[in-house]
Amino acid sequence: MGLRVGVVGASGAVGQTLLRILEERRFPLDTLRLLATERSRGRIIRVGEREVEIEVVRSGCFRNLDLCFLAVPGSRVSRELAPQAVAEGSVVIDKGSAFRMDPDVPLVVPEVNPDAALGHHGIIASPNCTTTPLVMVLQPLRQSAGLRRVIVSTYQSASGAGQKGSDELRQGSIQALHGHEVPHAVFGTPLAFNAVPQCDQFAEDGYTLEEWKLVRESRKILGAPELRLVATAVRVPVFVAHSESVYVETDRPLSVDEVRSILSVAPGVLVEDDPARAVFPTALRAQGTDEAHVGRIRRDLDEPTGLHLWVVADNLRKGAATNAVQIAELLTRGGL
Amino acid sequence: MGLRVGVVGASGAVGQTLLRILEERRFPLDTLRLLATERSRGRIIRVGEREVEIEVVRSGCFRNLDLCFLAVPGSRVSRELAPQAVAEGSVVIDKGSAFRMDPDVPLVVPEVNPDAALGHHGIIASPNCTTTPLVMVLQPLRQSAGLRRVIVSTYQSASGAGQKGSDELRQGSIQALHGHEVPHAVFGTPLAFNAVPQCDQFAEDGYTLEEWKLVRESRKILGAPELRLVATAVRVPVFVAHSESVYVETDRPLSVDEVRSILSVAPGVLVEDDPARAVFPTALRAQGTDEAHVGRIRRDLDEPTGLHLWVVADNLRKGAATNAVQIAELLTRGGL
Repeated sequence: MGLRVGVVGASGAVGQTLLRILEERRFPLDTLRLLATERSRGRIIRVGEREVEIEVVRSGCFRNLDLCFLAVPGSRVSRELAPQAVAEGSVVIDKGSAFRMDPDVPLVVPEVNPDAALGHHGIIASPNCTTTPLVMVLQPLRQSAGLRRVIVSTYQSASGAGQKGSDELRQGSIQALHGHEVPHAVFGTPLAFNAVPQCDQFAEDGYTLEEWKLVRESRKILGAPELRLVATAVRVPVFVAHSESVYVETDRPLSVDEVRSILSVAPGVLVEDDPARAVFPTALRAQGTDEAHVGRIRRDLDEPTGLHLWVVADNLRKGAATNAVQIAELLTRGGL
Repeated sequence: MGLRVGVVGASGAVGQTLLRILEERRFPLDTLRLLATERSRGRIIRVGEREVEIEVVRSGCFRNLDLCFLAVPGSRVSRELAPQAVAEGSVVIDKGSAFRMDPDVPLVVPEVNPDAALGHHGIIASPNCTTTPLVMVLQPLRQSAGLRRVIVSTYQSASGAGQKGSDELRQGSIQALHGHEVPHAVFGTPLAFNAVPQCDQFAEDGYTLEEWKLVRESRKILGAPELRLVATAVRVPVFVAHSESVYVETDRPLSVDEVRSILSVAPGVLVEDDPARAVFPTALRAQGTDEAHVGRIRRDLDEPTGLHLWVVADNLRKGAATNAVQIAELLTRGGL
């Protein structure tokens, strides 16, 4: 028995990955319909071996769907379409930021808070692509030793800003290698061969919205509204996979061996940590995978309960599409 | 009255920058001699409008030199040549790591601890390229409010591994953009479009030597042997300029405005911090400059004395050559 599934935003970076992952994981599909706004009318999208024509969103288009993935940039389109889809009888899994902090909407990483998904009222949100791997690593440490505080510096890839972000990095790199000026429009500053300490817009307090997402979403998923967590979010010239330099203070001290053994049995986490053989996660190695990769695990030099970790995940897969499909799998197991 | 100056390693990335900076700053030269090992015999190096032939290092070659810059990779050549040069009557300014932690050798950033230079016994060391901008920012904060602890995550450029590092990034980027495998030899892992949490070799404790340099050199320069400082050093696909995400806890809390005003009068520091207008330092903007650029200044969300900063400097200039030439200028003012 398959489900009737819709995907809004199928032509974007996350949408394309979503279609691939539905297939890879043999998600039980009865029908798959691709929906988009007027702009994409008539466009054909390849899904496996079939070619599917995009339907334009209109009143009633979500009727006869059991489940709908929203993989659209920004939050405006989600805010408009999610309530419509729910009213027309579909459950919505939103990859965007529109509803993540809505107290009425569960924000779910299936390895961390699967039960939250079952209490939904039609909409379930999937977290920001830096949040997901971080909480997958924090949750087992918290369960074993408590969390006192977390400080994160990120190394985020261009595809976090969508296909346009990757295209701009590619074009900019070619221009830079030819000694030309690097044009930019998606990013506020040329990204090619640069490190840019801005992801998303600035809030009035000097933090960016991306930094606030990491803080607030982590607290919500972990059910720890008082968790002391802070971030500096930086864009680097990488196509896919976000990396994070993470400092964690636990309540009770953990040895490096304890951390390795806790994380090696944590669901969805892959420990890659053998400095003597130069084994550690990198963006290129994590690309195309579904795990939160962790390495460079070491005790702080001064703080007895301080730990440093290097966490990497494919932002299009586990950071976005894979997590959304896993939420759908939870629902199918729960009978939707 | 000029000085008789020698440069060992003039054909490398730092050496080339050093020659340019001696000229830019109109360093008072009487003679300039370029020295190298047998491998570079007969090679001609362009210095301004002149062409200078490299002399092969031999016994007595440092006689008749007042000052000699060592800009050679690794520490083996420095360990051999520095004592010889001193014995033959030259003062040595070493850009390498061989003598930095030698208690008999001053480790100097002219804006931070100029007086240390005057107590030299023939050799003066210039710090690692991540240490220099960091201590330039930490010192004024420490003088105003005391330092309790520092946590750094770096974003280091390929040229930190010399001209060969930049060449490998350039070639690797071209290969990657053509969809080919990325060869690598200088870096243990392909750097193009990647983020690699390894600079220099690993010590047995899981930290890299680069991370230990940042810790130990900062303590020595600041004269704070107990300073709680820890680092995660990461290589990113940038040609020139190292960036650092810095968390600082001071003894007394400082407002963002206080930090800006303290740093805006700190020697060699340039505050670039206006988030509302997207003004912050980046590697590309810092390239070719001599300042430690600071932005993204903000209070920690939880810790009352915690601050976050983004620090960027040209690793070939202020991180290496400019600092070495400034040390030489200190000596000339002190009568050598």
